[in-house]
Amino acid sequence: MACRNVLLETKGNMEKAAQILKQRSLLQVEIKAKRSTTQGIIEAYVHTGGRIGAMVEVNCETDFVARTDEFKALAYHLAMQVAAMTPQFISREEVPERADIEPETACLLLQPYIKDPDKTVQDIIAETIAKVGENIKVSRFARFELGR
Amino acid sequence: MACRNVLLETKGNMEKAAQILKQRSLLQVEIKAKRSTTQGIIEAYVHTGGRIGAMVEVNCETDFVARTDEFKALAYHLAMQVAAMTPQFISREEVPERADIEPETACLLLQPYIKDPDKTVQDIIAETIAKVGENIKVSRFARFELGR
Repeated sequence: MACRNVLLETKGNMEKAAQILKQRSLLQVEIKAKRSTTQGIIEAYVHTGGRIGAMVEVNCETDFVARTDEFKALAYHLAMQVAAMTPQFISREEVPERADIEPETACLLLQPYIKDPDKTVQDIIAETIAKVGENIKVSRFARFELGR
Repeated sequence: MACRNVLLETKGNMEKAAQILKQRSLLQVEIKAKRSTTQGIIEAYVHTGGRIGAMVEVNCETDFVARTDEFKALAYHLAMQVAAMTPQFISREEVPERADIEPETACLLLQPYIKDPDKTVQDIIAETIAKVGENIKVSRFARFELGR
């Protein structure tokens, strides 16, 4: 319905319609980003062979969304991302001032997503926010590598 | 063979033989406790519903033992123990001096083992050391509980 209306607005111009839809969806994500997240799940991922493991806490607004497959899949892929890409921080805000650190490498949310490097982790979280209709936050992670 | 020899030593006294065997096995465990542990695995456990998760690094001496079912089961049960019993430290040595803390509650190794509360976690690690013939150490753990 939203697509149809936008196509009417743009008089059938698909490209323009897609652009408008994307902007509106991002706006929705931004609005949701202010809502508080007290529910969610803990998810863990251990690499084959058990040499690397990662654990994440991912939060959403309701227990209902926490139990959806989309949300669980997101948490699992985030744990996988942490295991594979060794982030040090969650977001740019956590990086200490004047630290000699590349935020795109060190911050989970800014890293290229391992399963689709054209997107960032933040992008795929935003996609899930758009899908489930709730704000989503990563509140912490831990990563263990054998002997390190 | 060891049992048979001890029974010969004690002239068939089963109780005395069992005592001697236990002492010798503990001695073996103590000797092994000095050997360095650079191999091992990372294991994680997430409680049903995803509200609590735990991750542990458990070390042994060789990759061969790290891949045995006994060792993997130990690591899994230790992760479960951490999830269920919320330890704050690994061993008594880590507890800060004069801290108002009960070591038997706060230290993983001193806690009663959830699957057999007559034993401590240290006891079941010692049993696995006796079984696999290598020193075993817990080097770290992490525990996440939703919203805490």
